[in-house]
Amino acid sequence: MPKVLYAGADSARESYARELTAGFAEAGVAAELVFDAPDPAAIDYIVYAPASGLRDFTPFTNTRAVLSLWAGVETIVGNRTLTQPLTRMVDPGLTEGMREWVTGHVLRHHLGMDAHITGQDGVWRGDRPAPLARHRPVAVLGLGALGTTCARALAGLGFPVTGWSRAPRAVDGVDCRHGVEALAQVLSGAQILVLLLPATPETDGLMNAERLALLPPGAVIVNPGRGSLIDEPALLAALDSGRVGHATLDVFRTEPLPPGHPFWAHPRVTVTPHIASATRPETAARAIVRNISRAERGEPLEHVVDRARGY
Amino acid sequence: MPKVLYAGADSARESYARELTAGFAEAGVAAELVFDAPDPAAIDYIVYAPASGLRDFTPFTNTRAVLSLWAGVETIVGNRTLTQPLTRMVDPGLTEGMREWVTGHVLRHHLGMDAHITGQDGVWRGDRPAPLARHRPVAVLGLGALGTTCARALAGLGFPVTGWSRAPRAVDGVDCRHGVEALAQVLSGAQILVLLLPATPETDGLMNAERLALLPPGAVIVNPGRGSLIDEPALLAALDSGRVGHATLDVFRTEPLPPGHPFWAHPRVTVTPHIASATRPETAARAIVRNISRAERGEPLEHVVDRARGY
Repeated sequence: MPKVLYAGADSARESYARELTAGFAEAGVAAELVFDAPDPAAIDYIVYAPASGLRDFTPFTNTRAVLSLWAGVETIVGNRTLTQPLTRMVDPGLTEGMREWVTGHVLRHHLGMDAHITGQDGVWRGDRPAPLARHRPVAVLGLGALGTTCARALAGLGFPVTGWSRAPRAVDGVDCRHGVEALAQVLSGAQILVLLLPATPETDGLMNAERLALLPPGAVIVNPGRGSLIDEPALLAALDSGRVGHATLDVFRTEPLPPGHPFWAHPRVTVTPHIASATRPETAARAIVRNISRAERGEPLEHVVDRARGY
Repeated sequence: MPKVLYAGADSARESYARELTAGFAEAGVAAELVFDAPDPAAIDYIVYAPASGLRDFTPFTNTRAVLSLWAGVETIVGNRTLTQPLTRMVDPGLTEGMREWVTGHVLRHHLGMDAHITGQDGVWRGDRPAPLARHRPVAVLGLGALGTTCARALAGLGFPVTGWSRAPRAVDGVDCRHGVEALAQVLSGAQILVLLLPATPETDGLMNAERLALLPPGAVIVNPGRGSLIDEPALLAALDSGRVGHATLDVFRTEPLPPGHPFWAHPRVTVTPHIASATRPETAARAIVRNISRAERGEPLEHVVDRARGY
């Protein structure tokens, strides 16, 4: 019977214990779930988040896979003791939550909602309605599971959507471009820009002063991806000049965002505290169970991290 | 050559002149567009909005159709001099705009966005993210062109959507109910309620105290339909008690909403000034041209108003 070590946050232990146990039972997988490993060599699978404190994977000599509870693995791939196959979390709950957050914030900016939420002054302004979505081009940088579902949802609502990724991708209803030489053109057409790239050395500071200057004047940036994608001083300068009309940011180089950080007080910035989406035990546990079931049947693991690529 | 009288708002005359002329040319329909009618008996079609001031249709003895520029015809159907066939506006631009406004405001409430838009106080609250849309039941009352497109878009984002209408309707992915006896059950499950019914004697004050009390505690109401659907004092009482958590209202019994109306100052109300959607000349003119083309070819008109039903 395979031994599965839960090495995630203590605060989530109870939820995961319940959901993993239920998941194994549903899947008909006889697995023993344990919470410590006096004999590391006896552990077959590790359900992992860095919050557990586990850093040295050397003693886990017979472990067949480390299954990350996190979608973003940039703090994990650099661990040289982790030589076992490593999988990323692709949680349908996380994907759905991201689609909802991105679609909601894109529509918020598209419709100019803030003026009505914060400006109830008793004056009826028979404004013209917002332009139609079909006249509001949106770009999504990053076409992994999250970027793809967001791009597809926005296209479904009528936005002309351009998707951009490192390697070629195809998404129904989305104009897909790839490679660094295509990026300038993608940015120059994006009235709303959604960042869903992974954090890698290549994407660090991708949105620097030069690239921010390519956006149409007044463009809106929505970043639920990674804080490192943005050069923060360059973004602040672009916001101050009005070049960038608004930034809605869910992720930051330092989290929690420090109380004195200029993003908090900037009138053109909305800070959300890394809530765009989250791994949810009920759906994430099923994804873990599915991958362990595959391994137990001798099938290849899903969502294996490519160490060279970094995700 | 058919004579088409534009009898809409003066302010929109220039846009409609341009778009109707372009539309007739595209459709290959030889029509003469005129802006007054010294000889009413010579007019074949009237492109109509009450803003024109035209009230007496008696002299238009040879007019084959009155084509409303407005989707809501409740102020037109009562005109007893208007005995010519009357068509409603079904404008793809209006439908798209409504879908965007409704989806945006439903997501705003679903995600609890206001807390982040108005509460940037430098405190990082590592809140739990919003529940997934799949756990947030939404009801759409009214399954005409507007309600149907909204219900379908919300279902596409993962919300469990119940649709309700007077007569039976079927919408893919939506649990459709009909008839007044089904309404109580629909309301009792709706965490977010979208009102897109027409204004008729039957729907006047539909959301009264008794029906508001059927909603789950804290439910949100989104009304881009008609002001008359809501009993305003009953809604205010339900908002004061917290029974209804929030109301986002785009339409009112009196428009513009008077400056002293309690909706303006209520912390649980968002007022938008009848902008959820609007007829747009470029798309509306094409719909008018299509209908006149049909009539000229001897085909039946589309979207003819049923006077008995009122829409």
